[in-house]
Amino acid sequence: MNKIRVAVNGYGVIGKRVADAVLLQPDMELTGAADITSDWRIASAAGRIPIYAATEQAQPEMVAQGIPVQGSFGELLDGSDVVVDSTPKHVAAKNIERYRSAGLKIVLQGGEAHETTGHSFVASANYESALDRESTRVVSCNTTSIVRVLGALDDADLLLRARGVLFRRATDPWESHLGGIMNTVVPEQKIPSHQGPDAQTVLPDLDVITIAAKGSHTQTHNHYWTLQLTREASTEEVLEALRGDSRIAFIRMSDGLTALNSTVELMRDLGRPRGDMWEVAIWEDLVTVSGNEAFLTYQVCNEAIVVPETIDAIRALTGSVRQAGASMTITDETLGMRQDFLRDSGVAS
Amino acid sequence: MNKIRVAVNGYGVIGKRVADAVLLQPDMELTGAADITSDWRIASAAGRIPIYAATEQAQPEMVAQGIPVQGSFGELLDGSDVVVDSTPKHVAAKNIERYRSAGLKIVLQGGEAHETTGHSFVASANYESALDRESTRVVSCNTTSIVRVLGALDDADLLLRARGVLFRRATDPWESHLGGIMNTVVPEQKIPSHQGPDAQTVLPDLDVITIAAKGSHTQTHNHYWTLQLTREASTEEVLEALRGDSRIAFIRMSDGLTALNSTVELMRDLGRPRGDMWEVAIWEDLVTVSGNEAFLTYQVCNEAIVVPETIDAIRALTGSVRQAGASMTITDETLGMRQDFLRDSGVAS
Repeated sequence: MNKIRVAVNGYGVIGKRVADAVLLQPDMELTGAADITSDWRIASAAGRIPIYAATEQAQPEMVAQGIPVQGSFGELLDGSDVVVDSTPKHVAAKNIERYRSAGLKIVLQGGEAHETTGHSFVASANYESALDRESTRVVSCNTTSIVRVLGALDDADLLLRARGVLFRRATDPWESHLGGIMNTVVPEQKIPSHQGPDAQTVLPDLDVITIAAKGSHTQTHNHYWTLQLTREASTEEVLEALRGDSRIAFIRMSDGLTALNSTVELMRDLGRPRGDMWEVAIWEDLVTVSGNEAFLTYQVCNEAIVVPETIDAIRALTGSVRQAGASMTITDETLGMRQDFLRDSGVAS
Repeated sequence: MNKIRVAVNGYGVIGKRVADAVLLQPDMELTGAADITSDWRIASAAGRIPIYAATEQAQPEMVAQGIPVQGSFGELLDGSDVVVDSTPKHVAAKNIERYRSAGLKIVLQGGEAHETTGHSFVASANYESALDRESTRVVSCNTTSIVRVLGALDDADLLLRARGVLFRRATDPWESHLGGIMNTVVPEQKIPSHQGPDAQTVLPDLDVITIAAKGSHTQTHNHYWTLQLTREASTEEVLEALRGDSRIAFIRMSDGLTALNSTVELMRDLGRPRGDMWEVAIWEDLVTVSGNEAFLTYQVCNEAIVVPETIDAIRALTGSVRQAGASMTITDETLGMRQDFLRDSGVAS
């Protein structure tokens, strides 16, 4: 079988990770990454990844800066089956017509509106509904985590209603000055915040409301949930339901993983590329059940969590793998995803 | 009528503010402040406040450092009617016997257990039950805010159940290195956190569960609440209930008060002593009601919020003012408390 030829447009926080993940897939070929920058961000890819200028205007400066530009954006698209657009928010929507006329399958990211593709994607929840479609949108990092976690509880018929507080990172680590959030907390100016409705683009029946705020930290998001269960349940039942999603990992306060930064450090110690955590990390020993209510806390690596979903979305659109589980297993194994970082050396089964 | 003679033991974050507030009360006299430190913290009080050494061991060093020590701790207690103990957590419990044998009324702070005094105090909720008691405990900053806000909704028969996420400051501003929290979030290692049960020491029938975490910031706490109401209500009804507590103030995103630090800066601009905010500040334009559910976000100045409660507790124990409202009005007016910082120049009525 021919490999799926994948182009990545936008070599930023998400794009560079997707490109690396594509390189690891046995059934995919990375045709190249396109961008408009000519600084360290794209230079770091030289020699590893075929680089293209995403616009005609950008190409001369890239060449002048010594970036080994392989060709025009049109040539990249012509040699690809699927394009993953990870350009900044709202840019992708303008690129769609071009992708469409080049006959490509299109994977957008969560910065775009659901309406742009008419389909929003989280592998464990709705892989099959994306099969053979022209396009889909991988939902944002926070929404991905919500769908994984609430979806797992919903699959076990345990979830009636979910109310969450999302404590977001101020900005991405590499642009630590952009957010400008020092020694404060910035509540989002609207309740509910957008992540609840966004999760409903994947799981329409979810009764979910979120409140969000940005903190002073730059590394990873942090969610706090109050869940109304459909019935009284034990902590073990809730944990068992959560274990049903292979992309939920369990961490423990009792292991000394007591804060966002300890988990971030653990990812580095585990040799993860860029310290990435593709899993949602739930504090197992903070999962608290009282009657028909459950409370839980988890951590979301905003830079990495959508990468496995993007890989699966590529397979779903091309239709090359027909079952979610089959695609997820390839992705999880090639990336090295785990449900327990300390006690279980194997891939989530 | 004789003024109530008040001693403050522990001239720290709370004690120094209580001392200043006592100085403002027409019916109180500050007999002195005791501490064991001899550095800038107590030196800054010299000439304004009579200083006493809280222990015999501390006195020589204080004198050597030029602190104008007025006399022994026993002399301070002998000349007082009430002692406010704002020493560090768990120290006050050891002092109680001494206060008792000196025949003093005793006000402890929220770091001590409810059992230490058998009574926990928030003026708007249970002033009358503290009348003529020997001792009470002013609950902590977070708990005070919870009792004010949930109590106001409960008084309006609107509150069925409250679930909150408390985003705490890392440490107090003056000891910014002690907390050691940089670029992370530290979830409390237990759900529920202690603030819910603590609020029940004042309002036993409150159905409240809290989840807490510490952020990287040092200025003020931040609460996010999901409330189950007793019935469907309008946003205006919920706001009206909240306005029923004179120590709840309303701030607005639409006024550009978009983060914890903007409110902190506003307090400085208003000329507040030490930039203190004694009120709970609720974001009025974030109060969101949907059917019988309400969501709200507020800010708690952990250094200052318990100060008015402490002043009222002094009056309640001595029995000099028999109604909560009467005491609170004196306190609120002398401090200059407000329900609206921008549109209403007067005292909360």
